[in-house]
Amino acid sequence: MKGLVVGAAGMIGRKLVERLARDGSLRDEPIEALHAVDIVAPSPGKTTFPIVCEAFDLAAPYVAPKLVAGRPDVVFLLASIVSGEAEADFDKGYAINLDGSRALLEAIRREYILSGGVYKPRLVFTSSIAVFGAPFPEAIGDEFFLTPLTSYGTQKAIVELLLADYSRRGFLDGVGIRLPTITVRPGAPNKAASGFFSGILREPLAGKEARLPVADSVCHWHASPRSAVGFLLHAATMDTRALGARRSLTMPGVAATVAEQIEALRQRAGERAVKLIRREPDTIVERIVAGWPSRFDASRAESLGFSAERTFAEILDAYIEDEHVHIDA
Amino acid sequence: MKGLVVGAAGMIGRKLVERLARDGSLRDEPIEALHAVDIVAPSPGKTTFPIVCEAFDLAAPYVAPKLVAGRPDVVFLLASIVSGEAEADFDKGYAINLDGSRALLEAIRREYILSGGVYKPRLVFTSSIAVFGAPFPEAIGDEFFLTPLTSYGTQKAIVELLLADYSRRGFLDGVGIRLPTITVRPGAPNKAASGFFSGILREPLAGKEARLPVADSVCHWHASPRSAVGFLLHAATMDTRALGARRSLTMPGVAATVAEQIEALRQRAGERAVKLIRREPDTIVERIVAGWPSRFDASRAESLGFSAERTFAEILDAYIEDEHVHIDA
Repeated sequence: MKGLVVGAAGMIGRKLVERLARDGSLRDEPIEALHAVDIVAPSPGKTTFPIVCEAFDLAAPYVAPKLVAGRPDVVFLLASIVSGEAEADFDKGYAINLDGSRALLEAIRREYILSGGVYKPRLVFTSSIAVFGAPFPEAIGDEFFLTPLTSYGTQKAIVELLLADYSRRGFLDGVGIRLPTITVRPGAPNKAASGFFSGILREPLAGKEARLPVADSVCHWHASPRSAVGFLLHAATMDTRALGARRSLTMPGVAATVAEQIEALRQRAGERAVKLIRREPDTIVERIVAGWPSRFDASRAESLGFSAERTFAEILDAYIEDEHVHIDA
Repeated sequence: MKGLVVGAAGMIGRKLVERLARDGSLRDEPIEALHAVDIVAPSPGKTTFPIVCEAFDLAAPYVAPKLVAGRPDVVFLLASIVSGEAEADFDKGYAINLDGSRALLEAIRREYILSGGVYKPRLVFTSSIAVFGAPFPEAIGDEFFLTPLTSYGTQKAIVELLLADYSRRGFLDGVGIRLPTITVRPGAPNKAASGFFSGILREPLAGKEARLPVADSVCHWHASPRSAVGFLLHAATMDTRALGARRSLTMPGVAATVAEQIEALRQRAGERAVKLIRREPDTIVERIVAGWPSRFDASRAESLGFSAERTFAEILDAYIEDEHVHIDA
């Protein structure tokens, strides 16, 4: 099979490519070729199959048709401007998150038409829990309506609608997965408003200070990068007939307060690490986060075979293990 | 105040312009000028204020900026490819219903920026109950999630999301109204899959045969053209602070089965009229209609001052009165 990963240089994209390289196969078929693209060229490690890594801007109209011309069997659409940046730069957010995504769907439809209706790839799209907006019920089910309170959430919700319509019309076989906030993100902080949820663990574990812009009582929905890759692979391989017309699913995760996150840190790395968290309330971040949901009923996804961690301690352990974090407690 | 009606040659657009001409004012202000556009030039009757009628295709990129350049205070966005045509012609439906609408929102945002944030018109957008898709609860509330089962419904749902985001960002002051099926539509049949709901009354009242493509038990959600104009005017004048972030509302209407519609016809025009209805099942129409909802909880719209007929007989009477239908029973 041939795969395409759009957004392969991002944190989840890199981990997805690493995993595909390790597995060497997808959907019980050996990977013949992988095309990994992003706004900067991805630089994956060794693979047993040919891999082409290229830099492209999905907002440029020539790009999507070019990416799909080779008719990949599975397309992972991960590319996204993050929430904080999409809020700060209205045009850029819409150009990438909406128009870029739509261009990719449209390019697939063109290949579908050119192929006489034979070409119909699996498209895995990473949506977000930001498609939901307050006020919320106690736990948000898959049937809760989409009222995003950010431009990012709006863009994700629109692509979910497009994904459903293109799937219904038979142009592609789409699965939208609404990722929890991915915690703990390795590497440098990004511009996501949710970045601090990782920062308050990652930085102290590295002996560095971290800023906490919200109250300890803020509750949020988390899953590890390892689980995120698991979601993507399952979405690429699952039987989509069970989805019906409702193509997007809230992924399972762990609801944890900032206080519970900090407690997990204390248990693994001690009080010295916890003391590196500096409380610096930021009203802009507080306002954005207040519009986000904190607890979900992901039973539909679970019944379809998606699984994640059960406790925040497991999430922290996945980070320590996968990133080979050394703790001198 | 200055008004812009996009889609002014359509059935509802014509009736809206007639009503504005009769009232001479909107939002307690005299109408200084009205710009009425559609894919064919509208031809309204006499007005006491200057009216400019022009033919434009909203899908052409130069059009939306041109329409908004005069900074109308109230914009009515009614232009739409109907459901049947949007399903038959995927490209055309998206070009008009999504891209055309978005171009208008974007043109307003450009004027907002050019004006230094001063220009912020009321935008009234006609959405549709086709934003909802089966399976449905007994009565669909405003918080039921959007899972359209047609491309038309998808396009309307996407514009609802854009309207909410553009309103939230302060670029415009948007109200989306989800119209029931408008019954009885005067004039010639259009390409809407819902056309027969009007045809089975309008044609027999004119002594002509009408085709009924679905079962008598099919239940649907109706309001008169008179109510539709009432919704538009109320959406143009209401205090939008009560809407919060949820900018689109399901309008009130009457849930009636085809059998109940026929009974209303029998009471007003007798058995001879009813005999002109020919039952001709059409599986394509049946499938589309089966995906539509039939009963709503419009209490949010009602509490915000929107009102409609209470019985299907009232809807039929509104048609007979407004269209001066002569019945020789």
